[in-house]
Amino acid sequence: MTLDRTSIELFHREFQAAFASVLESFEAGHEFRTDPWNRSGGGGGVTRVLQGDVIEKGAVNFSSVKGDTPHQISERLVEKSDRFYATGVSIIVHPANPHAPTFHANIRYFETDTGHAWFGGGADLTPHYFYAEDAAHFHRVLAGVCDRHEVADYSTWKQQCQDYFYLPHRGESRGVGGIFYDHLPATGAVWTFQQDLANSLVDAYRPILEARTGLPASDDQRAWQEIRRGRYAEFNLAWDRGTRFGLETNGRTESILASLPPRARWVYDHHPEPGSAEERLVEILTSPPEDWRS
Amino acid sequence: MTLDRTSIELFHREFQAAFASVLESFEAGHEFRTDPWNRSGGGGGVTRVLQGDVIEKGAVNFSSVKGDTPHQISERLVEKSDRFYATGVSIIVHPANPHAPTFHANIRYFETDTGHAWFGGGADLTPHYFYAEDAAHFHRVLAGVCDRHEVADYSTWKQQCQDYFYLPHRGESRGVGGIFYDHLPATGAVWTFQQDLANSLVDAYRPILEARTGLPASDDQRAWQEIRRGRYAEFNLAWDRGTRFGLETNGRTESILASLPPRARWVYDHHPEPGSAEERLVEILTSPPEDWRS
Repeated sequence: MTLDRTSIELFHREFQAAFASVLESFEAGHEFRTDPWNRSGGGGGVTRVLQGDVIEKGAVNFSSVKGDTPHQISERLVEKSDRFYATGVSIIVHPANPHAPTFHANIRYFETDTGHAWFGGGADLTPHYFYAEDAAHFHRVLAGVCDRHEVADYSTWKQQCQDYFYLPHRGESRGVGGIFYDHLPATGAVWTFQQDLANSLVDAYRPILEARTGLPASDDQRAWQEIRRGRYAEFNLAWDRGTRFGLETNGRTESILASLPPRARWVYDHHPEPGSAEERLVEILTSPPEDWRS
Repeated sequence: MTLDRTSIELFHREFQAAFASVLESFEAGHEFRTDPWNRSGGGGGVTRVLQGDVIEKGAVNFSSVKGDTPHQISERLVEKSDRFYATGVSIIVHPANPHAPTFHANIRYFETDTGHAWFGGGADLTPHYFYAEDAAHFHRVLAGVCDRHEVADYSTWKQQCQDYFYLPHRGESRGVGGIFYDHLPATGAVWTFQQDLANSLVDAYRPILEARTGLPASDDQRAWQEIRRGRYAEFNLAWDRGTRFGLETNGRTESILASLPPRARWVYDHHPEPGSAEERLVEILTSPPEDWRS
């Protein structure tokens, strides 16, 4: 198998189109807006955003950038590099219905002029109400992909996801996790895995969105959703390395911050009612189970 | 004049009470909630939050903390210190009416066991709609306080405020500024100035809140207010040093994040209508005038 930028980029472009059309199929009167952009240092991308009825805000972003290696990246490499190339697709879905969880996924490829190349990616789910069967389904699909590939390691990557999407100032996980991996050497086997992961994301998320999006929701439940989305904004703005890197390296702000929720709310010292479904969510995020699949 | 912790703390406590009761006078059926808290490393504070009809969310927070100097502070000092003491009052007011600007102010005192002590503080205004006379009034009051004290320097501190409350990823100032200063040696003259500043903050803000809070506001104007509050959340979570310091040193999260807006909204790539009042605000924040007072 030949690994080359062109075929990786092509897959990413096709994956962007395919995932976006799955999301669009949930909407009757709304379509994705498509914004191509150029990066001043080299390369560019295509940001696609849907602001609809079922999907209150969704973004499926492709990028292919290159140029001088930003010092924030170069410092973290074993061997310094002057020039880099990176391509990837990032997805975020904020559904309107509070019973439907927020979905995030990312696949990416990175190479330097010093001959190093690697893959990274992951997917995670952030519910506002905890449905054990949704978390189980999501993790089962991801574990299933990993089980099909010797290069993949579900249990380590599940833990990395849990460690990464964590709000230290709240003492809670952002959501029910998923998988997160980085710096996998760019072999053919890893690329095969990463494509399989990408192609499995629809199976991981669509059935959950279908099951939850028609459920009745009260104003109180929508208010709770907005409070939880405030936490999402806290994580992305204060802790997420990708967001910070983008903002600090003068990336396209609207593409980077397309991940932010459509609406958020901050209520001082809010605590859910004892015994409520809202409290149940906080309990799960504070003390996640060992295995989400059971 | 004797400068001692006890008298500074006492002033801070009294100032907290006085400013809070001015805010409370705007509300018919809502009062401040008062939460005393202790810091595990030493000291504590009193967080007071009002969630009302005129003031959708307001916080007036007092703190007096001491203990081992956090490395994030120690690293920035000329002379390393092991133990520190700090006391201050922070104020944030998010009015309900989109025509009324958000107000923020802070006064603080800091000392180390190595014999160094200093004051810092400031005040700034963040409108959602630009009223030139509000910005002029606010800056005139602050310049007036500074003019009464040899140790104060309005024009430098106005610039420092503009430089500090800036969103690089948006290319905009957070608001119309005010003053911002730090590391003023703890002399009696500086303390006298700082008390005068604190006592002038009601004059700086109350007339503006009174003038704007009764204006009619449409749903579109409230939506715009929420979009602008999204920018406020971006600044506080991604760039504000005080917020980051608090979150990274395990401060009381609800007190630190009491500054976040009650509601915020992120609309992908939103641009105000050409020629609109909303566009006028963005223009002012992108190209602030040399002198706000004229």
